[in-house]
Amino acid sequence: MQIGRYSSRLLEKAVEEFSSLPGIGKKTALRLVLHLLRQDKEVVERFGETILRLKSEIQYCKSCNNISDNEICEICANPARDHSLICLVENPQNVMAIENTQQYNGIYHVLGGLISPVDGIGPADLVIEPLEKKTRKGEVKEIILALNTTMEGDTTNFYLYKKFSEFEIKITTLARGVSIGGELEYADEITLGRSIKNRTLFVDTIQL
Amino acid sequence: MQIGRYSSRLLEKAVEEFSSLPGIGKKTALRLVLHLLRQDKEVVERFGETILRLKSEIQYCKSCNNISDNEICEICANPARDHSLICLVENPQNVMAIENTQQYNGIYHVLGGLISPVDGIGPADLVIEPLEKKTRKGEVKEIILALNTTMEGDTTNFYLYKKFSEFEIKITTLARGVSIGGELEYADEITLGRSIKNRTLFVDTIQL
Repeated sequence: MQIGRYSSRLLEKAVEEFSSLPGIGKKTALRLVLHLLRQDKEVVERFGETILRLKSEIQYCKSCNNISDNEICEICANPARDHSLICLVENPQNVMAIENTQQYNGIYHVLGGLISPVDGIGPADLVIEPLEKKTRKGEVKEIILALNTTMEGDTTNFYLYKKFSEFEIKITTLARGVSIGGELEYADEITLGRSIKNRTLFVDTIQL
Repeated sequence: MQIGRYSSRLLEKAVEEFSSLPGIGKKTALRLVLHLLRQDKEVVERFGETILRLKSEIQYCKSCNNISDNEICEICANPARDHSLICLVENPQNVMAIENTQQYNGIYHVLGGLISPVDGIGPADLVIEPLEKKTRKGEVKEIILALNTTMEGDTTNFYLYKKFSEFEIKITTLARGVSIGGELEYADEITLGRSIKNRTLFVDTIQL
């Protein structure tokens, strides 16, 4: 649906800014802006200032490329974590998702994207170098490829596998299978097939 | 779903700001913030600055209370519009919706809310005074009550009707009926009942 003429240029500009965000249409953007206008001045200013600080102050960890407030992120700076075990993910959300499981004590490497020839994204657009350097120094024992199983993810997995198989390290990937609580008849064939092929000892699962 | 620990305080703060907006959860907020982080610095700064300007620069028309860049909005400042005909609406979106029809040549009055005893919103919280002043000066011939037909809308309509019936002006309301293109069997009983009771001459509709 179209929105009529705005009664204010600044309102229109604000709506345009919000609707440039992914998944936010003009109508939603207008609703958000009008919501902000109803808030106290301090609230709106804090919002604007946070956005202004965002790009200038946020850093990317020099070690793992995750979003960080410092040169080295908290995970990489933590001596209690296993620095020889690297979980390779696409983006910071993936780090959060895995941290949320509280099942992982290694560190991460955030690629910042996936190889996608269609979108013109090649290996040079990804952050690989710090991981390569670490591996070359012999600091890495295992890399867990934890990319999404999309075409881009598979392409990137394959590229990385080839790149890192020259080193004497273990390259693993996430177990795929029927989700816990998931029903067999709703699992797709490939997942179900993989989960039969890679079946695990029952006794191992009850120890969890 | 819960989001794990953030790797950056500033990231967390930005996510909190975005998730304070209506309809935006933590996951969406995180996606929006990470999207902004991928944009050029100028883009993000323009976004932040627009928000900062929003609250300090946007004005409300002294005549109709609509959002405006000036003391008097473009609609109220337009001498070609009928200033004796006032369409009374709840918010600026309603003005846009009616302007969009290109069927209305009067001016507006934006209440800025509806009477809602449950939420502690009384008549004193609405902007009524400029309209009352205009009416007292004899500048108004007709007020169209165009509020939503919710309980709050009806309460507010009734309050305004009582308030303005002391003046010698026409008080009208939007026609309600089955929407154009709408099918009878899907119209609710009240709308359908109203549309039979207030039936119009067929010949008037084909002249549209």
